[in-house]
Order: sequence, then C-alpha cells, then structure tokens
Amino acid sequence: MSQKLRVTVWNEFRHEKENEKVRAAYPDGIHQAIGEGISGDVEVSYATLDEPEHGLTEERLQNTDVLIWWGHKAHGEVQDEIVKRVQSRVLKGMGLIVLHSGHFSKVFKTLMGTSCDLKWREADEKERIWVVSPGHPIVEGVGEYIDLEAEEMYGEHFDIPQPDELIMVSWFEGGEVFRSGCTFSRGQGKIFYFRPGHETYRTYYNEQIRRVISNAVHWAAPSTREYPKYGNHKPLEVIKAKG
Amino acid sequence: MSQKLRVTVWNEFRHEKENEKVRAAYPDGIHQAIGEGISGDVEVSYATLDEPEHGLTEERLQNTDVLIWWGHKAHGEVQDEIVKRVQSRVLKGMGLIVLHSGHFSKVFKTLMGTSCDLKWREADEKERIWVVSPGHPIVEGVGEYIDLEAEEMYGEHFDIPQPDELIMVSWFEGGEVFRSGCTFSRGQGKIFYFRPGHETYRTYYNEQIRRVISNAVHWAAPSTREYPKYGNHKPLEVIKAKG
Amino acid sequence: MSQKLRVTVWNEFRHEKENEKVRAAYPDGIHQAIGEGISGDVEVSYATLDEPEHGLTEERLQNTDVLIWWGHKAHGEVQDEIVKRVQSRVLKGMGLIVLHSGHFSKVFKTLMGTSCDLKWREADEKERIWVVSPGHPIVEGVGEYIDLEAEEMYGEHFDIPQPDELIMVSWFEGGEVFRSGCTFSRGQGKIFYFRPGHETYRTYYNEQIRRVISNAVHWAAPSTREYPKYGNHKPLEVIKAKG
Amino acid sequence: MSQKLRVTVWNEFRHEKENEKVRAAYPDGIHQAIGEGISGDVEVSYATLDEPEHGLTEERLQNTDVLIWWGHKAHGEVQDEIVKRVQSRVLKGMGLIVLHSGHFSKVFKTLMGTSCDLKWREADEKERIWVVSPGHPIVEGVGEYIDLEAEEMYGEHFDIPQPDELIMVSWFEGGEVFRSGCTFSRGQGKIFYFRPGHETYRTYYNEQIRRVISNAVHWAAPSTREYPKYGNHKPLEVIKAKG
Repeated sequence: MSQKLRVTVWNEFRHEKENEKVRAAYPDGIHQAIGEGISGDVEVSYATLDEPEHGLTEERLQNTDVLIWWGHKAHGEVQDEIVKRVQSRVLKGMGLIVLHSGHFSKVFKTLMGTSCDLKWREADEKERIWVVSPGHPIVEGVGEYIDLEAEEMYGEHFDIPQPDELIMVSWFEGGEVFRSGCTFSRGQGKIFYFRPGHETYRTYYNEQIRRVISNAVHWAAPSTREYPKYGNHKPLEVIKAKG
Repeated sequence: MSQKLRVTVWNEFRHEKENEKVRAAYPDGIHQAIGEGISGDVEVSYATLDEPEHGLTEERLQNTDVLIWWGHKAHGEVQDEIVKRVQSRVLKGMGLIVLHSGHFSKVFKTLMGTSCDLKWREADEKERIWVVSPGHPIVEGVGEYIDLEAEEMYGEHFDIPQPDELIMVSWFEGGEVFRSGCTFSRGQGKIFYFRPGHETYRTYYNEQIRRVISNAVHWAAPSTREYPKYGNHKPLEVIKAKG
Repeated sequence: MSQKLRVTVWNEFRHEKENEKVRAAYPDGIHQAIGEGISGDVEVSYATLDEPEHGLTEERLQNTDVLIWWGHKAHGEVQDEIVKRVQSRVLKGMGLIVLHSGHFSKVFKTLMGTSCDLKWREADEKERIWVVSPGHPIVEGVGEYIDLEAEEMYGEHFDIPQPDELIMVSWFEGGEVFRSGCTFSRGQGKIFYFRPGHETYRTYYNEQIRRVISNAVHWAAPSTREYPKYGNHKPLEVIKAKG
Repeated sequence: MSQKLRVTVWNEFRHEKENEKVRAAYPDGIHQAIGEGISGDVEVSYATLDEPEHGLTEERLQNTDVLIWWGHKAHGEVQDEIVKRVQSRVLKGMGLIVLHSGHFSKVFKTLMGTSCDLKWREADEKERIWVVSPGHPIVEGVGEYIDLEAEEMYGEHFDIPQPDELIMVSWFEGGEVFRSGCTFSRGQGKIFYFRPGHETYRTYYNEQIRRVISNAVHWAAPSTREYPKYGNHKPLEVIKAKG
C-alpha cells in the first residue's frame, strides 16, 4: 500500500495531570510517548478521555486504521455508546492494540466476553518478556527476551479466551508468569494485547517495547475487502422440491 | 463422578404457543424434546422465558452444571441482568450449549464479543453435517456425517471468534457451508455451539442429533476446582530492593 | 522491505510430459502458470523433480523466501534427504505454500505429523470456496466465495492437525465439504495449504485463485530475526543454593 | 464406560540401571512410580526399551488405550518401525502422554513435525507450574500452581507447533518460562505433553504431579468411533453433466 496507515493513540490522560511521578515519566502524556515510538509509513493522531465523545467520533473512527488503547483509573467513565462504536469498527476491520491496564477497559472486555481479570502487584520488580512464537511478524527484530528492570506485576490466571496466537510470556521476579502478548481476531478486525507498561515507568521509551508496538500496528492493518453480507440469502444452486 | 449431572434446558417457548406448525412438531415444547434426548447420568429440568426471572434465578443457576439455550424471536426480551448472571456462571464453570437461532441470543453474543451474524434461508433444503474432528468426545458414536432432509440454511460468514475446536461443518443443498459445531472456553466454562434445528422441523428427535447434544452435555461438565484468585497478590519470591 | 521476495515454485512436472490433456491445460508446466500469477515485488524461479537434487540444493533453498509445492504422482521419488532439507529451512523461517495434491507430499506429511489423507473424486464437478476468516490478509481482495465450474473433489475428513487459522471451506456439488485454506506455523516458518487445482483444469489461471496464492506468498514471507538459541543455558538470575 | 482404561507406561529404563542417584530416586524404575500414581478405573502395564520390539508389539499397542512415554538418553535406539507403529496407533485414536525429556523422542518429533528443541539447565532450581486454563479437565483438583523445589530447567523457545490448548506455564528460579502443559490432537488421537520430571528428582511421587498425569490419562481416552474412510468416494448428490 502506498497510503499511510492512520493510527489513533487513545489515552485516558488523567494520571499525568494528577500525579507528579507519572508526569515526570511522561511529561506530554503516555499517548505521546507511544505515538512517537511508532515507525514506518504511519500518520499518528491522538485522542483522550476528556475530549467530546472521548475524541472518538464516528468520523474519527472511520478514518482510523489502527486504534491503540491505554486506560486505567477511569474505565467506568468511558460511555457505553462509544464502546459499542469502537467494537463495531473493530468488527468491520479496524485494528486494535490494547496496552497494559487496558485489559480492564470496557472495550477489551466487550470484545473478549470474559472478566479479563488477573493478579497484580506494584513492587518495582523485574519483568522478562520471552518470545514463544519466534516467526511472528509482531516480534520481528526483537531479541529472545526483553528485560524491564522495574514494572508492575501481572500474573495468571489472566481471564481471557484462548488467544489465536500466543506471542510472548512474561517472567516476574516475585514468582509469577503472564501471557503478555496475545492476538485475537474479532469480525474482520485484528486485536493485539500487550502487557507493559505501568504509568510510573518509562517503559514506552524502551526501544524493544516500541518495536513490538510498531510491528503490531502494521500487523493489525485492515485488509481491503468488502464486508460480508448477512441475513436472508437466495440459493446459489437449485433446491429440489420436497414431499 | 457418582453424582448426577444437573442439566437445565432453557427455551423461549413462544413459537410453540403461537404457531400451529411448530406446535405439531413439538407438542410439549422444544425444550422437552431436547431434554428427553439427553442420555447418561443426568437430571434434567426446564426453564422458559415467561417464568419469573426467565426461570433462571441465582439459585437455579448455582444448581445447574450445564445450561442448554434455545431462543429465536424474543432475544430482545431477555433481561440484561439475567444475561450477566448467565455469563458470570459460565465464567465460573457452568457448561453452556447454544442451539441454532441461539447464535443471536444476548447470552451468546456477550460471551463471543462479536455480532454472531450469518446468512440464512428457509427453503426446506437438505443439510449434511460433516465431522471434521473425528477424535473429539462430542462426536463419539456419530457417523462420518449426519443427513437432515429438510432444515433452515445457515451460511458463512458466521461472525464468531475462531473456535477453540471446529468439530463439524455443514453442507447445504443451495450451495453454502457453515461451521456447525464449535467449542469455546470462557473463564472456567466450556461452550458448544451446535447449528440445528429450526422450530418447524422435528430435528431434536433425530437420534444422531440427540447423540451430539448428549455428548456435548457430558463434555461441558464443570471441573471441580477452586476459582482462581484475582487482584493484589503478594510475592512468592524475594524481590531485590532497587535503586 | 525494499528487497524483492524470492519465490521458488516447485513442480513435479510429469503429468504435463505424459498426458496430453494436462499439456493442453498447462503447455509450459503447472509451475509456470502458478509463477506468472504471483503479483507484487517478487522474483520467481522454478525447480522440478527431475533436476539434480530436484532443483532444491542447499544454496537454492538458502536463497528462497517462500517455496510453493505442487506434486502428485511421484511423491515417492522425492528423496528423503531433500525432504529433511526443506523441513529444516521451513523451521528456520522459509514460507511454504502447499497446493492441492501436495497434501500427500513427504514434505507436507513430515511437517504435519499426520497421514494427510482425505476423500477424493474426479467428476468434473462444481466447487465453491467460501471465505470463513474475512479479515485475513490471505483473502484480501477476494469475494465472499470463489466458484470453480469443474474441479476434482476433496472431502472430509482431512487428516491434518487443527490449523492455526481456517481461512476457507469448500462446498462440492456431490455433497462434501473440505477445509480448503489452512495456515500452520512450524518453527519460524509459516505454512499455507490451499486445495485447488487438479492438473486437468486451468485453475491456476483463475484470477481469484491467483490472488489467494499471491496474498499467501506475501503473508508467508520470513520475519527478519535471529534464530532462537537451544541447548544448555546459563541462569539469568541467581539460583539459591539448596540443601 | 464400564471397561477399565488400559494404560501402558513406557520407560527407557537405562538411567536407573547405570546411575546410583537415579536408582535411589526410582528403585523400581521411573515407569513404576508413574504407573502407581494413576488413579481411577485403569489397568496399568509397563514396557521398556530393552524388551523385544521395545515391549511395543502390534498386539500390545492394539490393547493400549493410552500410552505414556518417558525417554532421555537413548532416543536414537528406538527403532523407526516402532515409531511408525506408535504414530499410526495415535492417528487411530490411542492417547499419548509425553513426559519431560520425551520431548526429544522420535515419537514426539514425528507427531509434531518440528525439532522440539528447547533450552535446558541442571541446577537444582525451583520450578513453579502455573495453571493458565483453569477449566480444563487435566487440571481438575490442582491448585493455582504446583511448586517443585528442585528440577531441571526447560526454557523457551520450545520448538513445537502452537498447542491446541495451553494448560500450564512454568516459572524457573533462574529466569526462564516454559509452556509446560500442552495438548495436541493428531488424527483421532489426543496428545498431552507435560514437562516434569528429571530422572534425579522424585517428581513422579509428588501428589499434584500425579493428579495431572491421572487427569491427562482419562482426558486422552479414545472415543469409540469408526475410523474415517479415505480415498475414492462416490457422490452423495447428483452431479450435473458439464459441457
């Protein structure tokens, strides 16, 4: 495709305004750090919770190829109507990358059908993310593992449907494991869940993490294809009269 | 297990009251025909839409190991609170068998996260259901295919997540195919979607169809196991002080 | 990637020499018809059974990004050493597209671990290939189904491992269905099995079939990534002395 | 089923004869410790490498419902003919449980189609096996995780096809993770790979490990069903004359 891929990075954008430590880690917001890290032929724009319609108008979503979602403390404030709008766009082909605490967003839970619950701990502990699907385009150029010196822990059981492809598994210093990189298809849309990073760590500046997110954006690009027809359907072959 | 498996068959139970042709096919209701067909060490009870709480009280669901769902014309009348209750029980381990037009029930759509839409046609045409996973317990004792002389057609694309296991695929006289037998796990619960039968045909008296549903009921039985713990989790190993 | 994708089309190339009907359908060989149909930034070359080492020297395979395989009547003549060489390259990342009767090739059976057996019939009957994974890049630009007026029939049960992704399912006039488009990953390599076309039909000139094969070639392109390290591995963290 | 499940435990049975430490851990052989741990309505017998035909005659395999495989240092001595015999029985429905170093057995590699390679280390380190599919019958009655105070380490990348179901993931003290409990179906047979235990540790006396193996044996029991017919197949529907 000669056309640029249109990526919208959505961020709750509350921690950065209310918490000095987070502001120090992400002075321009988590979304900016994520967006700057996406390489390749892309056009990145941003949307945040406190904009009208959370910045996700019908028009904006129609013009989004891949949506990235970061949210944490205000999942409940996302309007159900916008959640349905995002779900509907994913089913029609828009890619979706859900990051870290976005596991508990209404958007992700609606698309998964499960509680999406997990174990967690904030203890500045080491995370090592191992690649288990080495041929997958999402880990192109990534080493055998990614070390993060300090992160929040997420542990199993992670209550998601079995992923279509399990790409990465995390090891945590405190003794837990976690399915950290998971793909799902829903309708014509491709979804990637990626576990890091907590708002107090500068994880989205890490070059390997940026590489994974960039790869995922290109992997999740929509296919150009007519949407399937549903409903009453005339026979394509002659049906014999019965009785 | 020496204990009987407790199966609840849920039926919308409207067609049978309003339509003579359906009443002729299922004089005691579709649920009765389904329930009578379940073999093995089971205890079958019934619940229908027009009972209080649709017959699905908290207590009833707590005492149900496997729930079978048949609905069609009144999906919209099922209360959202009951849908959430069923979803929650599935995540905690209750098995769920969704039949035919139940593909469009709120319960199934909520657990799948997709539109669950498909092509359909009422033309008294032949359906042949081919087994594609011959070693699966759900098709134990079933032949290479099941022929149904007249059924409603359902055709692809069927908008569901990729099933964990695809067990059966239907061929239709009019030229379509359909993924007719699909398993999904959600939380601790096992789900089986099975395509036949339309309310105007005596499909649930067919011995092979009954065999599949019986097998599925036993396959979907809950595992006896403590529910996973979620939320804040203490470290199991020592975490080194940082910085 | 700015570099051209290096595609090698392998053909048994016996039918065309021995059977007039096949020669009429494919005057320059099936491989030429397949190769000409591949669009995009590719460099296509050819290899056939009767060349030394079946045209698949170590050097040739090292310089192949995606290998396409068509064989039928002489599977037994393919040397085991070459089969191992192809398997080894797939595990290290080379893409592999297996077409039609290649289901019974040593290469495919070795990579699947199953018999790869199926039902078949030569009866000039209609095949209709339905898309069941509408968002997958392999069906980009392809309609809801592809009609082939006359083809050999392949029917279930198809004895393969459950595919990673089921992309297409065929309907046959004589009453069978078949999982026609299946993806598998093995090591770092991506594999796509695609059912059509029999040697007596000009299936590989069909524009939709060519589109699927072209898409598959690009989908199966290797990821640029170091091969994982196996064997004895030093600890990354301190292990406490025991006992 | 009222009939007992016939389980054959196969062991290489060499370490126990040659190494005092292993003999101390498993005085009657690893196979005996495994066999004694299987609960439920089963009939356990044993076979070892140095018996004629490795104890796996045609008759013996015909009378085996589930085969358990433990091998390590003598994989190369297993005759190819016996490997094919075991593969063939699995495709026809016999269950197969592959333990620990059996990952590198000819039987497992043949059924997987990949190298089945991995990282390893002998360092008396702690392994913690986390359940990630909490509703699966293989982990019925098992806690959230199983702790083994000392084991050999196996680390990713584990070169297997994507499992049908990933049941357990191991955490290792030295910093690695591993997909420890994996199911695969091949033909009509069900396969379970389970990572522990190394020959120098008394892992197969651990009650939780025994529970997993017992559950797996019952899960892998063959379905009673006619084997599919392959080959030339007459049409089930009328095929229109062409041209």
